[in-house]
Amino acid sequence: MKLAIMGYGVVGSGVAQVLDRNRASIEKKAGCPLELQAILDRREFPGDPHEKLVIQDVQRILEDPEIQIVVEAMGGTHPAYDYVKACLERGKSVVTSNKELVAAKGVELLRLAKEKNVNFLFEASVGGGIPIIHPLHQCLGANEILEIVGILNGTTNFILTKMIREQMSFEDALAMAQQLGYAEQDPTADVEGLDACRKICILASLAFGHHVYPDAVPTQGISRITREDVALAERWGGVIKLLGRVKKLENGTLYLVVGPHLVPKSHPLATVDDVFNAILVRGDATGEVVFYGKGAGKLPTASAVISDVIDAAKAEGTIPTLQWQEALPGQVADGRQVPGAFYVRLTGCDGQERACCEAQFEGACFLQRSDSLQGEVAFVAEGLSEEELDHRLATVLAQGGTLASKMYVLDGDF
Amino acid sequence: MKLAIMGYGVVGSGVAQVLDRNRASIEKKAGCPLELQAILDRREFPGDPHEKLVIQDVQRILEDPEIQIVVEAMGGTHPAYDYVKACLERGKSVVTSNKELVAAKGVELLRLAKEKNVNFLFEASVGGGIPIIHPLHQCLGANEILEIVGILNGTTNFILTKMIREQMSFEDALAMAQQLGYAEQDPTADVEGLDACRKICILASLAFGHHVYPDAVPTQGISRITREDVALAERWGGVIKLLGRVKKLENGTLYLVVGPHLVPKSHPLATVDDVFNAILVRGDATGEVVFYGKGAGKLPTASAVISDVIDAAKAEGTIPTLQWQEALPGQVADGRQVPGAFYVRLTGCDGQERACCEAQFEGACFLQRSDSLQGEVAFVAEGLSEEELDHRLATVLAQGGTLASKMYVLDGDF
Repeated sequence: MKLAIMGYGVVGSGVAQVLDRNRASIEKKAGCPLELQAILDRREFPGDPHEKLVIQDVQRILEDPEIQIVVEAMGGTHPAYDYVKACLERGKSVVTSNKELVAAKGVELLRLAKEKNVNFLFEASVGGGIPIIHPLHQCLGANEILEIVGILNGTTNFILTKMIREQMSFEDALAMAQQLGYAEQDPTADVEGLDACRKICILASLAFGHHVYPDAVPTQGISRITREDVALAERWGGVIKLLGRVKKLENGTLYLVVGPHLVPKSHPLATVDDVFNAILVRGDATGEVVFYGKGAGKLPTASAVISDVIDAAKAEGTIPTLQWQEALPGQVADGRQVPGAFYVRLTGCDGQERACCEAQFEGACFLQRSDSLQGEVAFVAEGLSEEELDHRLATVLAQGGTLASKMYVLDGDF
Repeated sequence: MKLAIMGYGVVGSGVAQVLDRNRASIEKKAGCPLELQAILDRREFPGDPHEKLVIQDVQRILEDPEIQIVVEAMGGTHPAYDYVKACLERGKSVVTSNKELVAAKGVELLRLAKEKNVNFLFEASVGGGIPIIHPLHQCLGANEILEIVGILNGTTNFILTKMIREQMSFEDALAMAQQLGYAEQDPTADVEGLDACRKICILASLAFGHHVYPDAVPTQGISRITREDVALAERWGGVIKLLGRVKKLENGTLYLVVGPHLVPKSHPLATVDDVFNAILVRGDATGEVVFYGKGAGKLPTASAVISDVIDAAKAEGTIPTLQWQEALPGQVADGRQVPGAFYVRLTGCDGQERACCEAQFEGACFLQRSDSLQGEVAFVAEGLSEEELDHRLATVLAQGGTLASKMYVLDGDF
């Protein structure tokens, strides 16, 4: 079977490399030879072992009937979306690592693949080298999925790890991540949670059967977290992690959120550090299962792409379990109404404001650091909605003081 | 499609229960209705929702051509082996949770399934509800597997957790596990490592392509671990875990071992506590991936069985990647020759013996507890084979003293 790669950057060249290295066992698993026929990229790659395969015109892939599987590793939606659509329309299966594309256009591309009886596969779009898409729809098939919670972005997890373990500031940790190549020069998509949001949308769509678009998910990043928050989280017995969460509520709607959370140290996600990712899936039969590994990187991501290439080569027609429907109006609940637990830090709260706060949040767990600043009040309150929390905070802030931080707390009965 | 269950104990009845509960979505994934036709058990189950399906004669399953999938949840090898073989010979796919059967007869039953173009599936035999068999041969298909390390037995992990967290003795922790139903009245297979050994053999056979029999694997249990060992492991910065390990050596042979290990606290397996299992797979492309979840229990195991039932229902013929060959003579290396790291505790070592020990193990990390007993010497030595270790220990013991404990240390570059 012949394949093409669109985009010969980190992931695309990794795919070619892993295919060269483990060809014999990969072809044995695929059940047929896999021949790389073309590589689409604007650039040229003199000296690359595959330099002669590099082409600049996508038509040469589209019009070659021998190319049956196309790996899309360009990133972004333009022109990736047009190219992927054109490949599927011509009856070629597409394997992608592009979470932005899947989160924006997944339902449409899956439907098109089904119409043409081919496959649109995206294991590499979530969790890098961690098998998660395939286990979710295949191995956990006996379960009704109740909840998914994940550390889905390695860059922010690296930054938070440095802030927690080495008391670095956010700015210093980000600069270090950029130096090490873990963060891009424009780190917005990572640090503001957009990347994690796309990934939880993909997982939610697959687990619950209807497309969830990123703009339906309240998303908060980590750029405003300070060393004070890290120290107070420690005081509470936890660490701060950027989580993407989806949970099915009793009324059938979905609670979705992306943002920094206080995670108790006893929770299996609390010890997932550095650039590692981990995804906890709670099923009604299997209970909690966690998948852990490198969430990014050339070879891990390439490995996930190739597992999809093997599936595409073996499949006789569209894989029926990898499908979802159009977004359901009203499927995503108003998360602000859902009871949960929250961490709050206020500054400039003296006598009167502090008393008001303690009255408003009676029963909350108030946190004290050894070197608390004058006027700092911090607490964890449980069993109230964000709307209710904000309402009570407004009462406190009317007296004075400033809201410095507000974060989710990962409650739950793990 | 019609199915039968052989053995209506914890797992068998769990399979019926999950099937009843999540029937609609399971059948959607299987692509066909799944009808439970017969349940084989010596006992009767008055009042059970499926009591009318219970039969005592296996021939009624074997001779019913409508039954195409048989779930074997009897445990043990007799009569499970004969029954499974008879089912496969009649062209029925078999799904089992029986690790003893797979470890003893896997290669033969897989070959027979292939001859008949049906499937012999065993996701539930390792890691309970954790998807591991399927991800290993499907999702990690782009990788050459280099190493597998697992906490594969929930009973012993519970006992060790109690010994570590609550300073219980082995005997007290075992008694508690028995009271809670986590350990059987005869706990030998669990505490002596036999169960973990069967599971690492199954994983090794699948990952490396040739059957590995349990009697080829040096296996040590946890019954001789004391509170002193737990305290010294803590001193070293680690915890004691019963691990099953397989690693491909440079000469192509396999290093396999089952036994208690000192695991550094920074290692992802160190925080896997209570009855949880976790399996680390190291692939050449994907790096380390860890699968974590409940390693046993009625519904988790039933969930894994049903994921196999779905695969069996969907499969058109034998799944080609789930196969291995007969054991290869010489495939398992003599582990005693392989360099590694070891923990040793000696008692009755005073002046002369201690000096001899420090000379023999120069450069080792000697461990001291605040309440060390008189004459206790403990250390972690790296970069030597077990043979070499024993040789040097013999020199020390010739001077006097007693070998109280010897354990592996999980080295490695995680």
